[in-house]
Amino acid sequence: MKTDQDYMQLALQLAASAKGNTNPNPLVGAVIVKDGVIVGTGLHRKAGEPHAEVHAVKMAGDHAKGATIYVTLEPCSHYGKTPPCANLVKESGVARVVVATEDPNPEVAGRGIKLLREAGIEVEVGILQQEAQKLNERFIHNMLTERPFVVAKFAMTLDGKIATYNGHSQWITNEEARADVHELRHEVDGILVGVQTVINDNPKLTTRLADRQGRNPIRVVLDRTLRTPLNGHIVNTTEARTIIVTSHDANENDIKQYEKQGVEIIQVTANSTGLNLEETLKALYKKGITHLLVEGGGTVNASFLRNNFIDQFIVYIAPKVLGGKHSITPFTGDDVETIDFASLVEFDEVTRIGEDLRIIAYPKKVKSDE
Amino acid sequence: MKTDQDYMQLALQLAASAKGNTNPNPLVGAVIVKDGVIVGTGLHRKAGEPHAEVHAVKMAGDHAKGATIYVTLEPCSHYGKTPPCANLVKESGVARVVVATEDPNPEVAGRGIKLLREAGIEVEVGILQQEAQKLNERFIHNMLTERPFVVAKFAMTLDGKIATYNGHSQWITNEEARADVHELRHEVDGILVGVQTVINDNPKLTTRLADRQGRNPIRVVLDRTLRTPLNGHIVNTTEARTIIVTSHDANENDIKQYEKQGVEIIQVTANSTGLNLEETLKALYKKGITHLLVEGGGTVNASFLRNNFIDQFIVYIAPKVLGGKHSITPFTGDDVETIDFASLVEFDEVTRIGEDLRIIAYPKKVKSDE
Repeated sequence: MKTDQDYMQLALQLAASAKGNTNPNPLVGAVIVKDGVIVGTGLHRKAGEPHAEVHAVKMAGDHAKGATIYVTLEPCSHYGKTPPCANLVKESGVARVVVATEDPNPEVAGRGIKLLREAGIEVEVGILQQEAQKLNERFIHNMLTERPFVVAKFAMTLDGKIATYNGHSQWITNEEARADVHELRHEVDGILVGVQTVINDNPKLTTRLADRQGRNPIRVVLDRTLRTPLNGHIVNTTEARTIIVTSHDANENDIKQYEKQGVEIIQVTANSTGLNLEETLKALYKKGITHLLVEGGGTVNASFLRNNFIDQFIVYIAPKVLGGKHSITPFTGDDVETIDFASLVEFDEVTRIGEDLRIIAYPKKVKSDE
Repeated sequence: MKTDQDYMQLALQLAASAKGNTNPNPLVGAVIVKDGVIVGTGLHRKAGEPHAEVHAVKMAGDHAKGATIYVTLEPCSHYGKTPPCANLVKESGVARVVVATEDPNPEVAGRGIKLLREAGIEVEVGILQQEAQKLNERFIHNMLTERPFVVAKFAMTLDGKIATYNGHSQWITNEEARADVHELRHEVDGILVGVQTVINDNPKLTTRLADRQGRNPIRVVLDRTLRTPLNGHIVNTTEARTIIVTSHDANENDIKQYEKQGVEIIQVTANSTGLNLEETLKALYKKGITHLLVEGGGTVNASFLRNNFIDQFIVYIAPKVLGGKHSITPFTGDDVETIDFASLVEFDEVTRIGEDLRIIAYPKKVKSDE
């Protein structure tokens, strides 16, 4: 006899298979079990398509009666692009609902569960909750903050350098790691750089995958004084959208030059140290960016760091030692007096990508009782 | 029925158990097997004590006749502190000798094997050779180069910083990683810093272990112009030996001041960029340093790097992101134009030490057919 954990694990696996395709929706999987047999399975494949529960209930048909449904996220209770799943689950005749984690949207959290319980259905919440929250960490972050989930990505040598003193950085990492970065670009919906990177490198910031057509993220340039070259790759919006974030002081005629080429402009408040990142992130979220890759230089990275806006660090370390007193490091910005000013993170995963290492880290969670 | 690999694996395990105790001798293990039964085992515990084969042959007694002996390193053929093992093995009556790897000393390599073969004993060489060479990587390096095996060790934040702009570095890593460093100090026989570190931090560079008495490495200071403070901890030689490496131009009276306190002085050639490291390493090896830990700042580390004198990198990465435009990085020195000037390494091992990561890397081996 399998356990609740086993079936929930399966539901999580189903959910995870759609990674990168469901934005802005969460990843959700569902499994219906009756007398030890899996009678229904489903997952949310894509925004606009049926939710996981719909597929599972449909497959189960009459077998749902008296069965247990395992669903990785609380069934929704509101009418969106599809009717509420809590109703559907109720009407399916299942006797028991096992939920991994509540809906993170504070406005609706717990409502689906309440609806089911009021219908006399046994509901259990919290099975593999941590795994389920990890799976939808970005969605949860979006719901709670109305900002994109921000990933700071950089590639450095074993001695912490991202470029030589003159900015040369091709290539720190090898092909496998670079391919991995393009998978990441495919997965996110926005990629942000500082205008200095645009001026220095004239990047395209599009997604190139070896085996299939990649999705291009929206390119975002932080450009307080509108220095983005009008003939740069990034201003060409035929392949991918581009947003330039600038200040309210930006010249109207300059703005029009960019808009003529299809570039979108966002204006936020600014001071001498730069653009207001909180406003920037809120505005990008409204533009549909839920998952933002920051490929800034040291200064842009440091502004995000000091404002606690980095939600995940993805660090590639190449098996190279560069040295050089003026070589460039991934985070620069204002100096601090002691190590105590460092931002604390937690290492989540260390993986070999070809000959390189990839470290995934998260900001350290402050325990509530501290 | 167990295989040759299995018995050699056991011999390697026995050998490895004496790690840190056999210097300047190699780690060696031996296993004698007759009719599928282990009849003799041994290992080299400490310089001056019997070799592995002696213990194993003694234990086996008459059972050695017609048996197979597995030994991790070619039995020695010369009279040192103990008589040659090859003779002993020959006289033990074994029918077959399985050797993991040849003696690395170019002057005697193959002689023990030849002696055995000439006595009509079947000798097989190369079983688990790679593992055996890894186990004695330092000894092999010593034999081939007559220099210490040099380990560059540093602790940095995830963004590659070893200190803030003003040199503050307490503490990058947590207690577990710092304890690990003291285990490393216990294992090596020399620890080298630049004089600037001595002036800034007044370090003791002794070994502090939580559970037992640690062995102190010989402290080595690179000090071209004899600026080591005469009242510093490092000049106090009651706890541990100290060697100051300086130039031939050093003032005789200054030298005497240090020698009066028990400090040993080595003089090597020097130019404007610093002391000659090749001479320094050869001299340290003659002083009995076979395994040297370099805990230099960025400049000292970079000199070792640029001269290809680093044999192993041990890097602790703390879960912290420091930032700061002038924060200090582990390798500095002269700048280079492109990434192609980086020294290539190979990641060998990544381990979590408490909340920190430890990466062990080696200089990339150049393939002989390239």
